[in-house]
Amino acid sequence: KKIVTLAGDGIGPEIMAAGLQVLEAVAPKINFEYETKARNFGGAAIDADGHPLPDETLASAKSSDAILLAAIGGPQYNDAEVRPEQGLLELRKELGLFANIRPVQIFEALKHLSPLKAEIIEGVDFVVVRELTGGIYFGEHSLNKQFARDVNDYSYEEIERIIRVAFDIARGRGKKVTSVDKQNVLATSKLWRIVAEEVAKDYPDVQLEHALVDSLAMKMITNPSDFDVIVTENLFGDILSDESSVLPGTLGVMPSASHAQNGPSLYEPIHGSAPDIAGLGIANPISMILSVAMMLRESFGETTGAQYIEDAVNKTLLDGVLTKDLGGNASLDEMTSAIINNLC
Amino acid sequence: KKIVTLAGDGIGPEIMAAGLQVLEAVAPKINFEYETKARNFGGAAIDADGHPLPDETLASAKSSDAILLAAIGGPQYNDAEVRPEQGLLELRKELGLFANIRPVQIFEALKHLSPLKAEIIEGVDFVVVRELTGGIYFGEHSLNKQFARDVNDYSYEEIERIIRVAFDIARGRGKKVTSVDKQNVLATSKLWRIVAEEVAKDYPDVQLEHALVDSLAMKMITNPSDFDVIVTENLFGDILSDESSVLPGTLGVMPSASHAQNGPSLYEPIHGSAPDIAGLGIANPISMILSVAMMLRESFGETTGAQYIEDAVNKTLLDGVLTKDLGGNASLDEMTSAIINNLC
Ligand SMILES: CC(C)[C@H](C(=O)O)[C@@H](O)C(=O)O
Ligand SMILES: CC(C)[C@H](C(=O)O)[C@@H](O)C(=O)O
Repeated sequence: KKIVTLAGDGIGPEIMAAGLQVLEAVAPKINFEYETKARNFGGAAIDADGHPLPDETLASAKSSDAILLAAIGGPQYNDAEVRPEQGLLELRKELGLFANIRPVQIFEALKHLSPLKAEIIEGVDFVVVRELTGGIYFGEHSLNKQFARDVNDYSYEEIERIIRVAFDIARGRGKKVTSVDKQNVLATSKLWRIVAEEVAKDYPDVQLEHALVDSLAMKMITNPSDFDVIVTENLFGDILSDESSVLPGTLGVMPSASHAQNGPSLYEPIHGSAPDIAGLGIANPISMILSVAMMLRESFGETTGAQYIEDAVNKTLLDGVLTKDLGGNASLDEMTSAIINNLC
Repeated sequence: KKIVTLAGDGIGPEIMAAGLQVLEAVAPKINFEYETKARNFGGAAIDADGHPLPDETLASAKSSDAILLAAIGGPQYNDAEVRPEQGLLELRKELGLFANIRPVQIFEALKHLSPLKAEIIEGVDFVVVRELTGGIYFGEHSLNKQFARDVNDYSYEEIERIIRVAFDIARGRGKKVTSVDKQNVLATSKLWRIVAEEVAKDYPDVQLEHALVDSLAMKMITNPSDFDVIVTENLFGDILSDESSVLPGTLGVMPSASHAQNGPSLYEPIHGSAPDIAGLGIANPISMILSVAMMLRESFGETTGAQYIEDAVNKTLLDGVLTKDLGGNASLDEMTSAIINNLC
């Protein structure tokens, strides 16, 4: 299996190394054979090649079996002409990564970190499914000194395939899909709701409910345990999936997957590149490590290996091994070693 | 002073009556003279005239000094051709109500209702300023069976005037503006950020910070006391202002104002028409009553009258007079009378 690794910027290289150590440790236990290729991406690639997604990186990514991405960006690119994020948007588009999946779960050992009351986050366990290659992100943009325009386009097919992903996931879980739109205002949302209803006919075992995005932004906080699978378009998904990360109280334990119709999937932590602590060896590698677990399960069918990693992370946290962001003082290396030691 | 009242649907008529009782009680204390005209609006107007914003209602609203709106909508219109919300969008556009203002505050007596931990909501006191007549709400919408499009337009002037509103408000409060956009993706957000920087030059005493909408959706929950004035475009404002209402833990105590460049302002509760409890006499009138207070202050310069009402509401809640939604069993009339009795 060929895995392309994009370490990127800030804490990216450190946490990627941690993720790969865990992969190396779990592989023999499950007879998983693989090779990795590190490629330039993001700010690091801008510095080296002037472009955040060099041709060679794209070509390697396309011919891989899965892609691990750590983190990109940094303050030095904030006002730059070419920005690391452009590489990410291009990569999503080029690989057709239309389905972004973010599981939201509360770790027992980290419950106290949540800004929400214990009774509110009790039983929270849902997945946000975000459309990732359409909508206002990829419509026409125009800008001059006096006026700006963005165009939000969705076709029936673009909506249908992401709704199907949501229903397929729900079928294997709590059998409920919450489809989020702004149907009382947007044409794209009117179509979205029609398609959701249409697709639902193929899944009589799964319940479909609709929610307006403004209302869902409340309910996600007031009633987070009501949800199983939340599916929405690109921009709403950007906002809601970030909002959902307040439930666990830390960005440090949340992985994500992005899938295409065909071809490799991409796995990455949801957090950023944390330039302020880059190189200090204190970054929390858990989101990256859990992204490796997601890759094993979703790209390679290695359920056991994924479970080993997830259990080891859980145990490590319960043991009280916590990095600074989680309120402890374990270093990145200490955390990584503890997780490896806790692998079955 | 001519006040047009739009009671609308569901609990609208009941809470409007409560708001007007409080106005009637406070008026002699501050020598405030006024007359009210009730007009049809929303679902009630669809039922009567086939249109949610009848010509007569619009004409009366235009020639008024202020407008009070209670609530509109109901399940019977969900799949209707003509919907109550269309009347609201038309009214905003016709009156040029470009600046929507929502104060977010925590009532001491209701703190326990918040889904957030006490230490998180400590000191929360900010205002969301939402652009209300531009953006994707009012751009071209097109829809057919296969494809849908919405267009998001902003001109320099549209952005400038709302940013100025935010800075003016911040100048009278905590002197900090948080401007929210999605500048790494949207052209309208790039222009937004440029204009915000430009306007900031006229307010050297006010601090400007920028935030991406996804990141703000988190920080509003994790660090809500960091904010003073949050300003954003129409769609982001819709989502974020609803999200902000989770902080007090109830929609039942939040008023809003919408201002135009010239002409009357509109005041309304942020909650909906609660059709399930309509007519039962148990609705919570506080958002409506606080909207009356906002009207006195912002349209008529009656600061004292506004303060009388706000203090009376505060005292009533501290006295433990609570409607059902707030965990008590006071009726709408009992709550309204208690507030009136507590007026200085
Ligand atoms: C970096 C940015 C373009 C990106 C997005 O908005 O999609 C990020 O916020 C994300 O959610 O992955
Ligand atoms: C009813 C709807 C069109 C409206 C909006 O989206 O503006 C509402 O959600 C609001 O915030 O006032």
